[in-house]
Parts: sequence; structure tokens; C-alpha cells
Amino acid sequence: MLAKNSVNLTDGKLETMTDAALARLATLNLALPPAPAPVANYVPYHLVDDMLFISGQLSRTGSGSLLSGRLGADLTVDQGRAAAAACALNILAQAHAALGRLDRIAQVVRLTGYVNATPDFSDHPLVINGCSDMMVDVLGEAGRHTRVAIGVAGLPGGAAVEIDAILRVRK
Amino acid sequence: MLAKNSVNLTDGKLETMTDAALARLATLNLALPPAPAPVANYVPYHLVDDMLFISGQLSRTGSGSLLSGRLGADLTVDQGRAAAAACALNILAQAHAALGRLDRIAQVVRLTGYVNATPDFSDHPLVINGCSDMMVDVLGEAGRHTRVAIGVAGLPGGAAVEIDAILRVRK
Amino acid sequence: MLAKNSVNLTDGKLETMTDAALARLATLNLALPPAPAPVANYVPYHLVDDMLFISGQLSRTGSGSLLSGRLGADLTVDQGRAAAAACALNILAQAHAALGRLDRIAQVVRLTGYVNATPDFSDHPLVINGCSDMMVDVLGEAGRHTRVAIGVAGLPGGAAVEIDAILRVRK
Repeated sequence: MLAKNSVNLTDGKLETMTDAALARLATLNLALPPAPAPVANYVPYHLVDDMLFISGQLSRTGSGSLLSGRLGADLTVDQGRAAAAACALNILAQAHAALGRLDRIAQVVRLTGYVNATPDFSDHPLVINGCSDMMVDVLGEAGRHTRVAIGVAGLPGGAAVEIDAILRVRK
Repeated sequence: MLAKNSVNLTDGKLETMTDAALARLATLNLALPPAPAPVANYVPYHLVDDMLFISGQLSRTGSGSLLSGRLGADLTVDQGRAAAAACALNILAQAHAALGRLDRIAQVVRLTGYVNATPDFSDHPLVINGCSDMMVDVLGEAGRHTRVAIGVAGLPGGAAVEIDAILRVRK
Repeated sequence: MLAKNSVNLTDGKLETMTDAALARLATLNLALPPAPAPVANYVPYHLVDDMLFISGQLSRTGSGSLLSGRLGADLTVDQGRAAAAACALNILAQAHAALGRLDRIAQVVRLTGYVNATPDFSDHPLVINGCSDMMVDVLGEAGRHTRVAIGVAGLPGGAAVEIDAILRVRK
């Protein structure tokens, strides 16, 4: 995934404009994974006016392997944070697939983070920070979001983390 | 519940127009249940501009009995899927109560599905498909939605499934 | 926190207008707590057009102490309801911080209530009523909302209840 997109301008001349957010991702030595296909009968995103709703993204790496396990049992907080960062990259991949460019994201409005955790685990915010930090690192002010972080009894396929998103986009 | 609504057109002539989505429900040998009354101090839906927010709908059948139990313990995936389908019918019933016609639903934008499940259960997507499939069967393209599926520690009254919805509607 | 705000009108004359909702809070012998600071890397609210998204608010009292514990184990339903009422006050505090006046809330559109509960607990609606009742008591019709109530495996810091909100506001 390159940090430059080729676009046809209205005068027909082909120009290359840098996607600032995609470039920032590259400076972090990160790349967008392929946007994950839905695991069931639904769509990955819907754009309604200027609001982009993104389906819950599991903690799946760019190579497609699922980061699974339960916080408070078989995963450390750092492993949980890495799982949340994988969710973040998948959210960004879906946004890129929907919008063509990451820098069309005007604001990450809402993230809801579900942590696969035991009843005695209480550091859900530290886990979901793996996603929150990534959003701010890549998108800057546009990445600052409202958030919900909770511990759930289980997640699809035994995933460690699932996060859904609502974004405001530039038209 | 009939698949036809009587409406007064602007010229005052009473005509009958088929509600295509309601008709499709009938061809599936299904009927809208009564829209469930809220179980506490809240309202079943709010229409904000063209977005319809629907409260979490429990897996309650048209006759009012609650489909309860826990996936991974006392319910099979098929029973879970049937519970999610019951949630779908209740969401459609609320939309019909709010809009007067099912085919005023322009798009099911978001479904969030909560599955009452043990920590080792991991087939939440198959369960929530009971709702997703119903939406697409009844509404076609307008029924295709973004989705979140998670396993929760418990649900009101011990319900097997709860699902909330955000819909875009035709004005 | 007074029920009156000083505002500069366009003619430069300083006037005092009563915030009806804030006044109602006072008649209930309640006051707005300080708007809680986020516990991690996110923001407490985002205003998008006329929709105010508020981050998940924990059951924290005005003095800052966290109401923690698990329904079905170490908390009664009444204690859970009090925890949900604390969430309500924190939601109102965030709305006041965002809007300057509580009576700019046109409608509480959606509340999602997460109850820290054992798998056998089933009275989540009674717990979340502690928030729902507060919204209606303080805001009247504008406080009536759609709602989701679920039981979760755990919450940040071991909080008893977390509730997030979407509000429509007057511009």
C-alpha cells in the first residue's frame, strides 16, 4: 500500500497527491492491511451523508491471523494493546476502502471497544488505548474520539478485542 | 397484520398501496408481531431527521414468550439463530410502528447483536446471522447493514439475544 | 454549580437566564459533578452537527470515588440503580461542559447501559432505570430515550455500571 494515490483531475491530467494520513502510517513503519471481508451476512461499512459506520473489526493481523485469547487469563495487557492496535489498522483499512483516501477522515467520532476478558480484569482502558493511540498517531486531531471500553464474555472466533467505529468524513 | 395499507392520497381518493417489504414477509409465512412495549422507563424508537434509532429488542416471540438461555450451555447455535430472528421481527415491528410502512426503510445502517453466551462460545456471528438474514430476506438491498456481534455475560430476563438498530428512512 | 448562567447578549447587556433543567436538578437536591476527565487517550464528547456523542461514563460519584462491584454478587439492585444514577449525572455534566446549558438538550436519543453482572443476573433494566429515571426527572420529555441494557463481564476499574449517550441538541 503506497502513501500516494493516482487521481484524475478534472482537466484530465494525471497527478499524484499525497495522502497525509497514509504517509504518517508509513513513517510509523506500518501499512494498511487488506480490508477484512465480513465474516457473515453483512457489509463492512455504510456511508450515510457524511457519517461512515464501520462494522466491528476483530483483532486480526495483516496476514489474516486472529489474535485470540482472554485478558486476565492468557493475555497480558501489552498483548491486548497490540490486539487493539490490529483492530485500529482494520478500521483504517475499511475507511480507506470506503473513501479512497485516509485523509478524507474529518473526525473519528466514536469507538466502542469490546475486550474479551475475565470478570476480575479491570484494565480495559489500557487495552483499548492500543487503538486510540494509533488513531491519534495516524490522524492527528482528526483521530481524537469519544470512546466506550467494556469487558465482554466472548468474541467471534475467540478474538481478544473487537472495536466498531463511527467517523465523520469530508465530502 | 396485512401487507396493504390504506392511505389518503392528496386528491382525497382512498387507495391501497402494497408495502413491498410487508408483502415479502408474508411470502416467507411470517407476520409482524405486535411492537413490544419497553420493559422499563424508555421509548422504543426515536426518529432524528432521517435516522431511526430503535431500542434493544429482546428475543421475544410474537406470542410474547421470551426465548431465554445461554449459548454454549443450554442452547444450540440453531436455537440462537432463531432467537436472533425473533429480535429481527421485533426490530421490524418497531420500524413499522414508527414509520407506518416497512418499505420506508431506506437502509438498515447498523445492527449491534448481543449474544448471551459462555466465555468459551465463539460462534456469535452464526447466531446473529438469524437477524441479518431476515433483514436481507425481507428488505433486500435495504436490509444490508454494518454489524457488531459480541458475547455478553447476561441479558434482561435471561434472554438469549438482544439486538439494537439504527436505520435510515425515506421521508 | 448554580442554576443560573451569566450570558453576554448581542447588545452587550449582561443578563441572567435560568437553565430550566439545571434548576430542576437543584429542586431534586442534586448538583452537577465536575465533568469527569477521560481515563485514557480519548475525548469526553464530540458535537457533530446537532448530535452530541458522549463517551462511556462510569459510576463515579461527584467526589470522584468509583462505585464498583458486580450485580448478582456483591451489589443489590438498589445499589446498582444508584450507580446508574451516578452515570446519569456524569452524562449531564459532560453535556453541560459541551453545551454551556443543560436546556440546550433537545432529546436524549440513545443510552447504552453496561451492567457489571454475573451470568445469572437478569434485572439489568431495573439497574439502568437509575439513569433513565434521572434523565426524565431532570429533562422531562427531552429526557425520554431509546435504550439498550446488557450485562457485561467486567468494566474499567471494576465499576458497577457504564453508560454512553447520544443526544440531539438545540443549536
